Amino acid sequence: MNTLADLLGVELPIIQAPMAGVQDTALALAVAAAGGLGSLPAAMLDPAGLEDALTTLSRHTDLPININFFCHTPIAVQPDIPEAWQNRLAPYYSEYGVTVAQTKGSRAPFGQELAEVIVRHAPRVVSFHFGLPEQDLLDRILATGAKVLSSATSVAEALWLEQRGVSAIIAQGYEAGGHRGMFLSNDLSSQLGTFALLPQVVAAVRIPVIAAGGIADAAGVAAACRLGASGVQVGTSFLRTPEATTSEIHRRALADLSAPTAVTNVFSGRPARGIVNRAIRELGPISDLAPPFPTAGNALQPLRRAAEAQGNGDFSPLWSGQNRSGCSAEPAADIVARLAEGLQM
Amino acid sequence: MNTLADLLGVELPIIQAPMAGVQDTALALAVAAAGGLGSLPAAMLDPAGLEDALTTLSRHTDLPININFFCHTPIAVQPDIPEAWQNRLAPYYSEYGVTVAQTKGSRAPFGQELAEVIVRHAPRVVSFHFGLPEQDLLDRILATGAKVLSSATSVAEALWLEQRGVSAIIAQGYEAGGHRGMFLSNDLSSQLGTFALLPQVVAAVRIPVIAAGGIADAAGVAAACRLGASGVQVGTSFLRTPEATTSEIHRRALADLSAPTAVTNVFSGRPARGIVNRAIRELGPISDLAPPFPTAGNALQPLRRAAEAQGNGDFSPLWSGQNRSGCSAEPAADIVARLAEGLQM
Repeated sequence: MNTLADLLGVELPIIQAPMAGVQDTALALAVAAAGGLGSLPAAMLDPAGLEDALTTLSRHTDLPININFFCHTPIAVQPDIPEAWQNRLAPYYSEYGVTVAQTKGSRAPFGQELAEVIVRHAPRVVSFHFGLPEQDLLDRILATGAKVLSSATSVAEALWLEQRGVSAIIAQGYEAGGHRGMFLSNDLSSQLGTFALLPQVVAAVRIPVIAAGGIADAAGVAAACRLGASGVQVGTSFLRTPEATTSEIHRRALADLSAPTAVTNVFSGRPARGIVNRAIRELGPISDLAPPFPTAGNALQPLRRAAEAQGNGDFSPLWSGQNRSGCSAEPAADIVARLAEGLQM
Repeated sequence: MNTLADLLGVELPIIQAPMAGVQDTALALAVAAAGGLGSLPAAMLDPAGLEDALTTLSRHTDLPININFFCHTPIAVQPDIPEAWQNRLAPYYSEYGVTVAQTKGSRAPFGQELAEVIVRHAPRVVSFHFGLPEQDLLDRILATGAKVLSSATSVAEALWLEQRGVSAIIAQGYEAGGHRGMFLSNDLSSQLGTFALLPQVVAAVRIPVIAAGGIADAAGVAAACRLGASGVQVGTSFLRTPEATTSEIHRRALADLSAPTAVTNVFSGRPARGIVNRAIRELGPISDLAPPFPTAGNALQPLRRAAEAQGNGDFSPLWSGQNRSGCSAEPAADIVARLAEGLQM
């Protein structure tokens, strides 16, 4: 396991999954201080916001923090909300007495401006979701000496990433919460569980593999190591920590261990796993009407706000993996310490 | 691990998954002789066929063999093939020059007649898929002293089974090949990967839990043990053994490790995982038109026969789990021995 920790410059090969919308620098710093690799989700930051966040991080720590970006193909022009999607949502607008409000998509893909901020700050670890950015952008990041990580949901994606020079691969099993990193295929029916994906990726590539999806405690870490993982990435277990910015509604939903999750596209246009709520149940889980990423959620915003004002999460993305058994309200450092016990098992 | 082995009366807590259509007594006997628990799928046997099989088994071994039944709710009257399904298949009938032939559904649920055969032979292990039979039938089986197993795909199903007196629970993760044992829900979107299902079932019940889904080698067995499994059930890895009756077309498909699998209902009417072929790709994976279990496949039979006569498996159910890395053409005993190494890791 030391290979990956050395590569990333951390004490423990335990990565806190970057989770846009439910955390900022505080969680990343707490995990870093506990010996793991903290992560900052930059998918919802513009260059000025990224500049601020990186300045905050370097003011508080010399330890590596992983800066994470999405690299989907951007939509050239922000489209109007499609009529079919508006019609589908109309009864809910009536119910809540809200009107459709065109809002801006909030997830910009990694581009030149963000790359310049990264080159200036030179974080030691940069990770990507949905593949990798264009080669020239990737080369600029690699030239800073940063270790680059990305997620694979199939052996084919893992080989693609290895070929392009990433330092390690995150094997993201079907159990994982939030957005699925799939980028060579959009066929959800073939997505692999961690137990099947992890050993097949380990066998296929020569670089370290980080296990993600369903890992919630020391036993999960130990099991991932047995399947060949050099480290783990854990997200869900950190969602109720005091250092996360998870909403009270989301925290309450996470605390109900029996609530099922599903992979849905209704909140963003791309498949992502969250706790099944009214929006997933009635509009999805997968809807052909949902507009393309990242715009699908825009039309849900007025409903989300109205529902949350009533204290319910019927239209909120309640991101969660399939195993919430380690998702407690303890400090992040305690969760890192508990996961780390699995490295010795 | 010895608790489960003792309970089942075998040397190794390694169960060969019962696989209707691709094995008979030979595979069960080979696994038993190697120290594992061999299984006989009885889902496609009538009482006379079961009688024959049990007689064959007892002539060859004194070791326990697991006899497996389906316990779906039977269809009162064998329906005609629905018009919508016939219309959907019509272009394929034309292409292959075959005609729709009404054939009998070949999977009978466990009932009084089969129970009588079981009571007479008193096998030491009986397992069920899709829940459990009616209480009076279950009581008759339990009264023989047989250990009873059944599969759970959720914590709720595991608790339901424990309450009804099963001896151990098979936690069947999303990765598993063949029919999904789900019986309290038919919502595929919430099905759990082994990494998430197994530890949550282990935490919820007091009886031994057997891990199934994605386990293909010693490392997989070791990982399942770390997650709390008392034993494992492995199917896919035995499909290419000389003792299995798997067709050549199916064996060829299994040998291509890169071919994806999907959960489909087009072959039987119930969700089951197989290698993606033309039938799954073009008719499914999940079709609203597929007739109820077990009749959906009847209308595919003429296409399957015609395609197989041409040497292809376009309309054959090519059952497989998501991890074929341990699916080799070696004798079953060698596969059992390799899996058993994981018990010491």
